Amino acid sequence: MHVLITGAAGMLGQKLARRLADVGALRATPIERIDLVDLVEAPTVSALCAARVADICHHGVAEDLVSPMPDVIFHLAGVVSGEAEANFDKGMAVNIDGTRTLFDALRCAEGTPRVVFTSSIAVFGAPFPDPIPDDFHLTPLTSYGTQKMVAEALLADCTRRGFFDGIGIRLPTISVRPGLPNAAASGFFSGIVREPLAGVQAVLPVSREVRHSHASPRTAVEYMIHAAELDSTALGAHRNLTMPGVSVTVGEQIDALIRVAGPNTASLIVESPDPVIAEIVAGWPERFDTQRALGLGFVPDGSYDDIIRAYLEDDFVSG
Amino acid sequence: MHVLITGAAGMLGQKLARRLADVGALRATPIERIDLVDLVEAPTVSALCAARVADICHHGVAEDLVSPMPDVIFHLAGVVSGEAEANFDKGMAVNIDGTRTLFDALRCAEGTPRVVFTSSIAVFGAPFPDPIPDDFHLTPLTSYGTQKMVAEALLADCTRRGFFDGIGIRLPTISVRPGLPNAAASGFFSGIVREPLAGVQAVLPVSREVRHSHASPRTAVEYMIHAAELDSTALGAHRNLTMPGVSVTVGEQIDALIRVAGPNTASLIVESPDPVIAEIVAGWPERFDTQRALGLGFVPDGSYDDIIRAYLEDDFVSG
Repeated sequence: MHVLITGAAGMLGQKLARRLADVGALRATPIERIDLVDLVEAPTVSALCAARVADICHHGVAEDLVSPMPDVIFHLAGVVSGEAEANFDKGMAVNIDGTRTLFDALRCAEGTPRVVFTSSIAVFGAPFPDPIPDDFHLTPLTSYGTQKMVAEALLADCTRRGFFDGIGIRLPTISVRPGLPNAAASGFFSGIVREPLAGVQAVLPVSREVRHSHASPRTAVEYMIHAAELDSTALGAHRNLTMPGVSVTVGEQIDALIRVAGPNTASLIVESPDPVIAEIVAGWPERFDTQRALGLGFVPDGSYDDIIRAYLEDDFVSG
Repeated sequence: MHVLITGAAGMLGQKLARRLADVGALRATPIERIDLVDLVEAPTVSALCAARVADICHHGVAEDLVSPMPDVIFHLAGVVSGEAEANFDKGMAVNIDGTRTLFDALRCAEGTPRVVFTSSIAVFGAPFPDPIPDDFHLTPLTSYGTQKMVAEALLADCTRRGFFDGIGIRLPTISVRPGLPNAAASGFFSGIVREPLAGVQAVLPVSREVRHSHASPRTAVEYMIHAAELDSTALGAHRNLTMPGVSVTVGEQIDALIRVAGPNTASLIVESPDPVIAEIVAGWPERFDTQRALGLGFVPDGSYDDIIRAYLEDDFVSG
């Protein structure tokens, strides 16, 4: 089993590589090689891993990566939401042209590997029904969401034409995201758990009634692995799937934090309404009815309590 | 009023140019100039027209076309369904890269013209609810439909970012299409009317129960003009609209033909079932609930009888 991970230096890429190395097999076949590619060097978490610093958009890189052809490709490389909005050309170049370069290389090479593409619920845009069904239209309200939508469309067509065997999985917001606070509008969803657990104050810029859909990093990695392993004939022509999430209000997140870590933790959350962030968040989806993904065996976190526990087990470093 | 039409030598491009020249105004403003661009020379139907033979994908062409900036651009240029399926590279190059080249030129130039893009109901793919609502997801089953979906997504994002003021209109099957029979799987929808009216036999390869959605060329042109004239603020962020059609069974088409042209005409239709065509057609949408477009003032043909009459008035040439 030969695996390729693009965007391997990112948070999810690193966790995926580590998980694959720990399990040592994919599709019941021992893993012999995990190629990690990114613009910066990805940590080689096991002797199975080989890291390469390269830009998939550059001439010849994609062709190299698929020679010899991996059995499974996890295509995680991408410019994130804020950057794609701030820098239109860069988002188009990486999220669309980079993806197309990889798909073209696959088309021109021998073999039809499974390609797992990490899309995003940013492909959806308000107004929404509640819950949002699997056959709801894509009307992204960001360049990032647009670029993910385009990549999804190309993946489905390339799969239909037999260039490769693709599956796109639309990840919900990942929380609790480890690391430092960042400037993303969605950052508080992780921050109000991560910072108090570390004994640090966290700002809550929206109302406790705001509802949002979450998946732990651990579950996101399991989604990717399941997407690599499932029988893709069950997907038919619809190759892009909304992944299940745990839909909770911010108040329910805080209740879960109190249950898992005690009331003193929650007292570190400082409510400081920010109308700008509140307006951005109001355009985001709240709850999905992901019947297709559930029917195909994708297993979400059990509760927001479980999401906090996964963070404590996987990422929490006591101060 | 300065108008640009890409794909101007095509059937709809020619009809659009002629209609604009006849009316002489757009948005209640006299038309001073209609630029026609295509790979072959478009007929200059009026002194207002200037035809240019050029490939919009070629370096500098798109920049030239938007200098000076037209007030309204009708972007009709594209590779049709059969060709996009037979030649993947050509479809991608024209339908995606050509469109992106135009959009990039608009982004880099001064002004925010209205851009009317002719998309297609090929962006939809079976299985379908009946009727198909405006918020149904796009899961095209052809490379053509995929490429139209991608162009729609880019149009919406470019509009959101203020590069231009875009509207995508998804045209139903155009019938009665003038001219000679062609090899398209959908060709019989026009053929079973056009050929008998000319006193020629026509083959019906599917059952009379097959249901499909139609718009006359005349109405398609009116859709484009209405899309150029309407107040686009009413569209909000959702810039791509399914156009209304007349949904009829093949049997109802034939009944209309008898009403308009008499029973002898219909006797020229020869039923000759073709399982291959029947299977292709089974994947096509039958009926849409186009509330948004109707609410925005797009007016469909009144009936299939009207569609036949429009053909007789606009295109029929007695043998």
